[in-house]
Amino acid sequence: MTSISYAELQAFTRAVLDKAGLDAFSADSVTTGLCETSLRGVDSHGIRLLPHYVDSALSGRKNPKPNFMFKRTFPAMGLLDADNGFGHAAGMKAIDHGIEMAKETGIGAVGVANSSHPGAMASFALKAARQGYMAFAFTHADSLLLSYGGTRAYFGTNPICFAAPREEEEPFCLDMAPSAIPWNRLLMHRADDKPLPAGVAADAHGNETTNAGSAASLMPVGGTAAGYKGVGIASMVEVLCGVFTGMAFGHAIPAMFTTSMAEQRHLGQFYMVMRTDGGIDAGTFRAHLQQMSEEVRAEPARPGEQVLLAGDKEIREAARRRQGGIPLDKPTAAALKKLAERFDISLRHS
Amino acid sequence: MTSISYAELQAFTRAVLDKAGLDAFSADSVTTGLCETSLRGVDSHGIRLLPHYVDSALSGRKNPKPNFMFKRTFPAMGLLDADNGFGHAAGMKAIDHGIEMAKETGIGAVGVANSSHPGAMASFALKAARQGYMAFAFTHADSLLLSYGGTRAYFGTNPICFAAPREEEEPFCLDMAPSAIPWNRLLMHRADDKPLPAGVAADAHGNETTNAGSAASLMPVGGTAAGYKGVGIASMVEVLCGVFTGMAFGHAIPAMFTTSMAEQRHLGQFYMVMRTDGGIDAGTFRAHLQQMSEEVRAEPARPGEQVLLAGDKEIREAARRRQGGIPLDKPTAAALKKLAERFDISLRHS
Repeated sequence: MTSISYAELQAFTRAVLDKAGLDAFSADSVTTGLCETSLRGVDSHGIRLLPHYVDSALSGRKNPKPNFMFKRTFPAMGLLDADNGFGHAAGMKAIDHGIEMAKETGIGAVGVANSSHPGAMASFALKAARQGYMAFAFTHADSLLLSYGGTRAYFGTNPICFAAPREEEEPFCLDMAPSAIPWNRLLMHRADDKPLPAGVAADAHGNETTNAGSAASLMPVGGTAAGYKGVGIASMVEVLCGVFTGMAFGHAIPAMFTTSMAEQRHLGQFYMVMRTDGGIDAGTFRAHLQQMSEEVRAEPARPGEQVLLAGDKEIREAARRRQGGIPLDKPTAAALKKLAERFDISLRHS
Repeated sequence: MTSISYAELQAFTRAVLDKAGLDAFSADSVTTGLCETSLRGVDSHGIRLLPHYVDSALSGRKNPKPNFMFKRTFPAMGLLDADNGFGHAAGMKAIDHGIEMAKETGIGAVGVANSSHPGAMASFALKAARQGYMAFAFTHADSLLLSYGGTRAYFGTNPICFAAPREEEEPFCLDMAPSAIPWNRLLMHRADDKPLPAGVAADAHGNETTNAGSAASLMPVGGTAAGYKGVGIASMVEVLCGVFTGMAFGHAIPAMFTTSMAEQRHLGQFYMVMRTDGGIDAGTFRAHLQQMSEEVRAEPARPGEQVLLAGDKEIREAARRRQGGIPLDKPTAAALKKLAERFDISLRHS
């Protein structure tokens, strides 16, 4: 396993995206999204996707220089037409509009139309939380979540993400898919030819399988007993991202990996950014959320375990990787090397 | 099993609450909440709680004639001080303020302070959705959800609820606790001395148990493999309902059943009401959500099953119970009879 420093990874990614033709805002947004996600240990949604994003810029799936159009339909609500730009760029722009509205009105809701896969949602919600706001971030995706009682997927692994500021530097952040594991992690098992844990995936007939190669859908969180909860979350997100935005939903969403790279995906996203001082002052909000965080971390644990808050694992991993570098698995290291050669960019890793 | 008609149950409940001293808005709100919840088949949060609510009005825990104070802190955000009134009344009032703001600004966020247990959240979100709005509804509750990796509960079974209008009369509605089952259902098993299903509850040491009598906490949805997702949802709801509102959180929340009935609970709630026409027109929104609903219901199912959308089970049960009446288990029928005698109100059931 090779590893690369965070600064080097950011510089390399930014340079690659520049060569792939992205405008500065898009390149910055995708760089922040991919590198921060890898830093936080969420490798499934991190830098391993860079080659895919480069292809999608060069092939026409994504517009590397989008002309974003934001229509503030109501004082606290608007729609951002992302002009088929990168999902990461659309999300960062949407958060900016959300903050702008929330500052004045307390809360701002932004739907995003004509976008693409934005990667991990945490980067968007964290952007708002680092500026002192609470934020919800949602995106939908192509059908991959087994319907409860069904034999195939209708909804995607539509994630729900929420962040809020506290006294410590890193905000509180929940970022979860409604599936037992993310599809990108299944793909990593498939690439490594490793079996899946039990209860996380189903085959083409809707039967549980541990074979990553033949897996056709992911089991919803809650499993056979309460999987309607996982599917329920996915359906809620679909209403916000697919219906509210006027985009496609369910089977009508083009798949991420099996659709032609020249086809635009017209995905939706949905954000809500909120002030923290609607009831108490912002300092008290931060202090109370800090107190809650510390209380949770001090809860009695089972032998060998520790009670953590949502996002704590990622914060710890980010601290480790800031020091020791970001590990790259063999296929990712090889893919980055190819990009370095293709675009004649230096890539230093150990 | 006796059963009672929906109209009779509503009239009886309203009369009882009147005698218990509730003002008209509070009595109407609690009646709607309890009876609609029973109609929809969610018996754990329905009419069986009426005796508890009557006690809490007469004992001083809840203010039967609250002086609600709404402060619209920002154009699209405010805080409702519920003056220790009934949670149901506070929720209905909060939704009204949310609609009022959303009409003008697109979205309205309302925190509720100094409230109490509002029962099932669906009634609040549905109230907004029946008027053409999308709505989120959240409440927190006392520590009952086993911490992931921990030996006891810190967060409550804090639910997440979302509703949205479509062409058919009943809106889309997701209303779910982040626990495998609701605590009220565990109490029903305890009352009937029936064992629990596997994987839904833990004892005082955090070990899984099927003994309803010794259960001390509920397992989060996701179980031992992904229970951090269930706990994550509960923590997000706690930020909105406990931190944002300035109320207590975690262990500081007085318990529903074991706290003195004279003690006020100072619970928080949180609502967001949204227009559906921020991106597309309201008619297209309804049409698309209708199409999504019908597509999901037509998905291929496993033998003997049917794929349903969130809320479909409740809609079907409500249709059945509107026709055939609402079943009352023995303890509930006996408790209602006692209330009828105590307040000299007629109670007709078959």
